[in-house]
Amino acid sequence: MLDLFIEAGKLKKLPRMGWLLRGVANPESVAEHTFRVALITLFLGDELKKKGIDINVEKALKIALLHDLGEARITDLPLEAQNYVDKKKAERKAMVDILGAERVEYFRLFQEYEDEKSLEGRLVKFADKLEMVLQAWEYEKSGAKGLDEFWGALDYLKKSEIYAHFKDLIDELEKLR
Amino acid sequence: MLDLFIEAGKLKKLPRMGWLLRGVANPESVAEHTFRVALITLFLGDELKKKGIDINVEKALKIALLHDLGEARITDLPLEAQNYVDKKKAERKAMVDILGAERVEYFRLFQEYEDEKSLEGRLVKFADKLEMVLQAWEYEKSGAKGLDEFWGALDYLKKSEIYAHFKDLIDELEKLR
Amino acid sequence: MLDLFIEAGKLKKLPRMGWLLRGVANPESVAEHTFRVALITLFLGDELKKKGIDINVEKALKIALLHDLGEARITDLPLEAQNYVDKKKAERKAMVDILGAERVEYFRLFQEYEDEKSLEGRLVKFADKLEMVLQAWEYEKSGAKGLDEFWGALDYLKKSEIYAHFKDLIDELEKLR
Amino acid sequence: MLDLFIEAGKLKKLPRMGWLLRGVANPESVAEHTFRVALITLFLGDELKKKGIDINVEKALKIALLHDLGEARITDLPLEAQNYVDKKKAERKAMVDILGAERVEYFRLFQEYEDEKSLEGRLVKFADKLEMVLQAWEYEKSGAKGLDEFWGALDYLKKSEIYAHFKDLIDELEKLR
Amino acid sequence: MLDLFIEAGKLKKLPRMGWLLRGVANPESVAEHTFRVALITLFLGDELKKKGIDINVEKALKIALLHDLGEARITDLPLEAQNYVDKKKAERKAMVDILGAERVEYFRLFQEYEDEKSLEGRLVKFADKLEMVLQAWEYEKSGAKGLDEFWGALDYLKKSEIYAHFKDLIDELEKLR
Amino acid sequence: MLDLFIEAGKLKKLPRMGWLLRGVANPESVAEHTFRVALITLFLGDELKKKGIDINVEKALKIALLHDLGEARITDLPLEAQNYVDKKKAERKAMVDILGAERVEYFRLFQEYEDEKSLEGRLVKFADKLEMVLQAWEYEKSGAKGLDEFWGALDYLKKSEIYAHFKDLIDELEKLR
Repeated sequence: MLDLFIEAGKLKKLPRMGWLLRGVANPESVAEHTFRVALITLFLGDELKKKGIDINVEKALKIALLHDLGEARITDLPLEAQNYVDKKKAERKAMVDILGAERVEYFRLFQEYEDEKSLEGRLVKFADKLEMVLQAWEYEKSGAKGLDEFWGALDYLKKSEIYAHFKDLIDELEKLR
Repeated sequence: MLDLFIEAGKLKKLPRMGWLLRGVANPESVAEHTFRVALITLFLGDELKKKGIDINVEKALKIALLHDLGEARITDLPLEAQNYVDKKKAERKAMVDILGAERVEYFRLFQEYEDEKSLEGRLVKFADKLEMVLQAWEYEKSGAKGLDEFWGALDYLKKSEIYAHFKDLIDELEKLR
Repeated sequence: MLDLFIEAGKLKKLPRMGWLLRGVANPESVAEHTFRVALITLFLGDELKKKGIDINVEKALKIALLHDLGEARITDLPLEAQNYVDKKKAERKAMVDILGAERVEYFRLFQEYEDEKSLEGRLVKFADKLEMVLQAWEYEKSGAKGLDEFWGALDYLKKSEIYAHFKDLIDELEKLR
Repeated sequence: MLDLFIEAGKLKKLPRMGWLLRGVANPESVAEHTFRVALITLFLGDELKKKGIDINVEKALKIALLHDLGEARITDLPLEAQNYVDKKKAERKAMVDILGAERVEYFRLFQEYEDEKSLEGRLVKFADKLEMVLQAWEYEKSGAKGLDEFWGALDYLKKSEIYAHFKDLIDELEKLR
Repeated sequence: MLDLFIEAGKLKKLPRMGWLLRGVANPESVAEHTFRVALITLFLGDELKKKGIDINVEKALKIALLHDLGEARITDLPLEAQNYVDKKKAERKAMVDILGAERVEYFRLFQEYEDEKSLEGRLVKFADKLEMVLQAWEYEKSGAKGLDEFWGALDYLKKSEIYAHFKDLIDELEKLR
Repeated sequence: MLDLFIEAGKLKKLPRMGWLLRGVANPESVAEHTFRVALITLFLGDELKKKGIDINVEKALKIALLHDLGEARITDLPLEAQNYVDKKKAERKAMVDILGAERVEYFRLFQEYEDEKSLEGRLVKFADKLEMVLQAWEYEKSGAKGLDEFWGALDYLKKSEIYAHFKDLIDELEKLR
């Protein structure tokens, strides 16, 4: 299990490439991003539950913590790279190897995220996009420019089934700019 | 809720002061530490459950994600500072303010960690120390020196009730050095 | 005495938290701030003297060099933190411990700054605010945003008894923006 | 052509992932590596020529400057990643797109490097490895640890046909450690 | 020869002082600048050749790679410093010492750049300015301010004999802003 | 006077080149060094006075704060550079320009340091070397290597007239290693 924790430690060192390539000095790491995705998942998940939605918050939290673990091996491939590399396939294989055969249950959780095939998986995807837009705004508030394209994720957020439950939140996010 | 997510974002910017003061260049942030604490909690928690221990993994994960949130307001006060500041009291008040009156349930989770009054709280404390020792080793492996005192946390780990279940893991950690 | 110099060396590592939390990449250290506060004190002090004001420049310079030394133990607590921590009390105790019983005279100098009870103490406070506003402008000139609140220190500067002697300087500072 | 120069500018931002993942703080960029590979190529190339070897130094220099350009799109994939991604294929496609159809001659130069099918291509590969080992030593000399595996490239250097001409140089490199 | 490669490695550590002094966080190194100057030289040189201009591209590439090597000893003296230091003389002497008596041919190449006495030397100077303006724009696009003076190099570019051949490119560069 | 303070602010940005060129990641700035030189001057100066030595501590403090101000224009030229540049002359001219004709008294203070022609000037030189050796030790304690040559300054310290008064301190410093 120690190997797994060491592997996860690499996410602390890996810069989020999208920011780096757009000139953000000292951008966040994958681990920092994952932290806030998980925290957002926590609060949105509990809120959904309070609203009577049938959601497994424990599962959602696990998915959030695991969702970028494959990047410990394949790094955070920027969008540009994904024209040349089958990221989905690479990430899936990396996840299998990192988790090992004895932890196949966690790989299944990861697939729920990747394929958006459970509500919990879709919630984490929602949190992932929300986190990114919020980070874009935070960089812009400090003076960064050239981050327009990241705001495009608002479209994803608005089309999501989850949007109906957090309309005010997403509207507030959009109005920050 | 957006305010809360923005507050949590500050943990990305806050360096872990213990490393910084001992000369680690570009040390990890509080958010990076929290990420791995939560991930360790996930795997140890599930393992305990498999062993038949009655533990609420969802609760443990929430505690892990929240356990350093107060630092968004009070920063990561190094050990030296704690002779001059009542960190426990300050952190508690900061948590109350960050979470707000409507989220008092999360404050109670934080207290379980702080006062080690539930198994879940104690598991996160265990994960917190384990994460720190592992990070010390990782810095040393890359060339850092002067981090001896951090290895002292092994004593805490060995005295914990949780140690019995992860003796091999902790022994492996100790032998890394 | 070597211990004291080592302690002072920590100020090189400590980032000024106000900038850090507002997203300035690689902000100045406490030591860097202190350097310029002392330099400003030098020139303003000598100027006051030339104008016939009865001021002890040697004392003022000592106060400037010592004014943030307590942060070697308590770190640079940001404004937000000061709602949760009695910074004044903590800093005073830290200063006592850092300087040691045999250097109580220097602690008294620090108190003149903290309580603004001598002209020299007030001059350093004036230099401290002036330095901060100038630094805010320098960050803004390089592209930083979100630093409005730091300009509020201009109010302090204008209300100070020292303002009358450096009206042109402060006006020039205000007009930089 | 400006697009091409902007693309090349990305290499300034991309950290060399091998160092980053082993904990080197602020490691070199791909552009910095490429600079020294080209410089080494210059001096080794001219030396070979002086020794009567039939080598086109201009071509070798072009290959050196272009050899990592594909990373502007696919980033510097660490060795670990190459188990999950067909780097060679990805890089080739990226090179084609970056250079564009009208610059197919440069793509052919790149292939000479990649497939080691010309002396010039092999010289750049030799310079690439030499540069990496030298950089490993420089990091170690400054205190870095955990870089053993990079010294394995000495084997490549010694097996190269070019080794015969620079035996003293490579021996000197090996003895640095 | 290894000494020479180690010397060149210092260019990776040296920040380009113009950016640093204007507050760019983590500015490029001299090595990064040199990389792109050489790459630009490659494409402009080949283009000139295609247009029937009599130019030795190999020589131009060598000049580009060597043009800032003297900074390994004298560092990147900012414009301000050049009122106090005879940079030209210092750089020339440093080049002589770095290259050594046995490599006087390379020093002669450097002089062609410095004194702009060959077309190849002038091409590298052209590429050097072009690279700098492009970098200024890239920093500005990411949010940097206060870099106006660097755009002044457009005047140099337009007055150059080489401008006639790359009018479109320079116009495109100018319009980026 | 604001111009002077802005000029002094550049010392915050300028890395101490000796550390940078030896591979210290994120080395101290000139301003950080100056801060501790001034603080050391304060305590050594007061100590000398207590021992009955006739010393003007105010003057010594001013010299300490001003001693590297010329580097705002000429940067921190490393030892290697000083074979190619007349640093002393350049620094003196830069100081004259920075201070301006109306502040010639401060230039005279600087000369007392440079030419070691007053006790106060020699004290600052002593503090300057002491600070550097202490910093070398601090970097080494954190894992840095390759800093041997900096310890050579102990010779200067031991030959100084001031050594007799601080023998214990310097011995303690030497034994740190």
